[in-house]
Amino acid sequence: MNYLYDELSVGQKASFSKTVTETDVYLFAGISGDINPAHLSEEYAKNTFFKTRIAHGLISAGLVSGVLGNIMPGHGTIWISQQLNFMAPVKFGDTITAVVEIAEKLEKSKIKIKAACVNQDGVTVLEGEGIISPPRVKVE
Amino acid sequence: MNYLYDELSVGQKASFSKTVTETDVYLFAGISGDINPAHLSEEYAKNTFFKTRIAHGLISAGLVSGVLGNIMPGHGTIWISQQLNFMAPVKFGDTITAVVEIAEKLEKSKIKIKAACVNQDGVTVLEGEGIISPPRVKVE
Amino acid sequence: MNYLYDELSVGQKASFSKTVTETDVYLFAGISGDINPAHLSEEYAKNTFFKTRIAHGLISAGLVSGVLGNIMPGHGTIWISQQLNFMAPVKFGDTITAVVEIAEKLEKSKIKIKAACVNQDGVTVLEGEGIISPPRVKVE
Amino acid sequence: MNYLYDELSVGQKASFSKTVTETDVYLFAGISGDINPAHLSEEYAKNTFFKTRIAHGLISAGLVSGVLGNIMPGHGTIWISQQLNFMAPVKFGDTITAVVEIAEKLEKSKIKIKAACVNQDGVTVLEGEGIISPPRVKVE
Repeated sequence: MNYLYDELSVGQKASFSKTVTETDVYLFAGISGDINPAHLSEEYAKNTFFKTRIAHGLISAGLVSGVLGNIMPGHGTIWISQQLNFMAPVKFGDTITAVVEIAEKLEKSKIKIKAACVNQDGVTVLEGEGIISPPRVKVE
Repeated sequence: MNYLYDELSVGQKASFSKTVTETDVYLFAGISGDINPAHLSEEYAKNTFFKTRIAHGLISAGLVSGVLGNIMPGHGTIWISQQLNFMAPVKFGDTITAVVEIAEKLEKSKIKIKAACVNQDGVTVLEGEGIISPPRVKVE
Repeated sequence: MNYLYDELSVGQKASFSKTVTETDVYLFAGISGDINPAHLSEEYAKNTFFKTRIAHGLISAGLVSGVLGNIMPGHGTIWISQQLNFMAPVKFGDTITAVVEIAEKLEKSKIKIKAACVNQDGVTVLEGEGIISPPRVKVE
Repeated sequence: MNYLYDELSVGQKASFSKTVTETDVYLFAGISGDINPAHLSEEYAKNTFFKTRIAHGLISAGLVSGVLGNIMPGHGTIWISQQLNFMAPVKFGDTITAVVEIAEKLEKSKIKIKAACVNQDGVTVLEGEGIISPPRVKVE
């Protein structure tokens, strides 16, 4: 399923929610090579500002990818650029909702989006604007 | 190992290289919920512009996270923001080198970085500027 | 996104496609404990009827789960029962399309489905009827 | 290890037990594409009938696959068909025992099995009959 350029309007939103777990963080450590003890060592982390291991910021960004590629605009979307402002930590067990909003329809079939990730307490953990190229072929 | 603010100088670089595999992409699909067939279906992908499945763009960004959190500045670094410009696709088996360069030393112990990811043929697949807060505590 | 009982009609279809990989098989071996060498040992498998390692049949069934839980009827669906007829092997690299069709609207808001998984050559690798309880609450 | 047709008798049983974890569920979400929030979002799930995230039903079916392929009849078994009746939810941390029983020796070296998965409290979470073709070659 997907939305072509002409099917998208400013203000349209879609979201995807997931509880971010230790499993996600440990797998992402292997994928990224980011083996920072802030993510992987509880002994190290208990002496940090956050007092416990936190998730990689890009895991929240991943949920934005999930919305774009799978929900809106969906299959065929190309992600051209994205600003990521990491606002607050994500702890293991936090449920993060990624929200993508169509912000502006640009020339040449490009679209400006606003992306935000919010935790279960309403705290914004990630936000930023991006540019996408929506699908050119309809998929049912 | 890590570098404190005073130990970092403009132009200093560090890098991390990894061959991005089908395994990375399939695991990241589960982490992110981005099950776009451009990443997961070879039959779908062979009819796309890229002719084959490609990696999620955030996997390359993950290698930047790997440099920052693990090499330079290393343990204790906080990633404040990052611009990601996705320039070219990453195919399964491409070896991606993420390079981080200290671009400017800002006020309040913050640092502007330039990040780039380059494939085995010298093609830049991702680039963008970011802001980090380097570690405040030395780790050997 | 999801479809309630009243929004589903006989003959309605949805599908999900994925290239089934060695990664999927190796992870599923760990999840299931099915470490049969038909799935995990190329040396063993080259002397079997299929000549190479094949995927666990339940991985194809998993794609049916993906359609039901994520596409149609989507979030909130309860899978009550499913007949699985394993018709043909899935080799690593085969792209499997799971198709779910609404077969009959039953009493008490239950629905009979027909599920089938077909490979890139049009061969049916899995088929069977199932019973589901579609979502009772609308999710956008 | 395995059992040929002539080595199997009606009433013979084998089982495999495993604690089903968050990790199993998160990996299976990636394998199957079933990213239903009933499995992945604790915030969504706490408002469902089950009050918390539950495992995909096919993970329990996977343990049946584990018995068949690895224990009885073991290496070389072909799973022809299986009825799956999902009876009760599996929560993260539940220990599930899959039990396979030889129900009937059919013509043409086929065997009817009864499969059931039971949790640590004795609740049957999955049951159903299946047909298998036991190994034709002895493996020690």
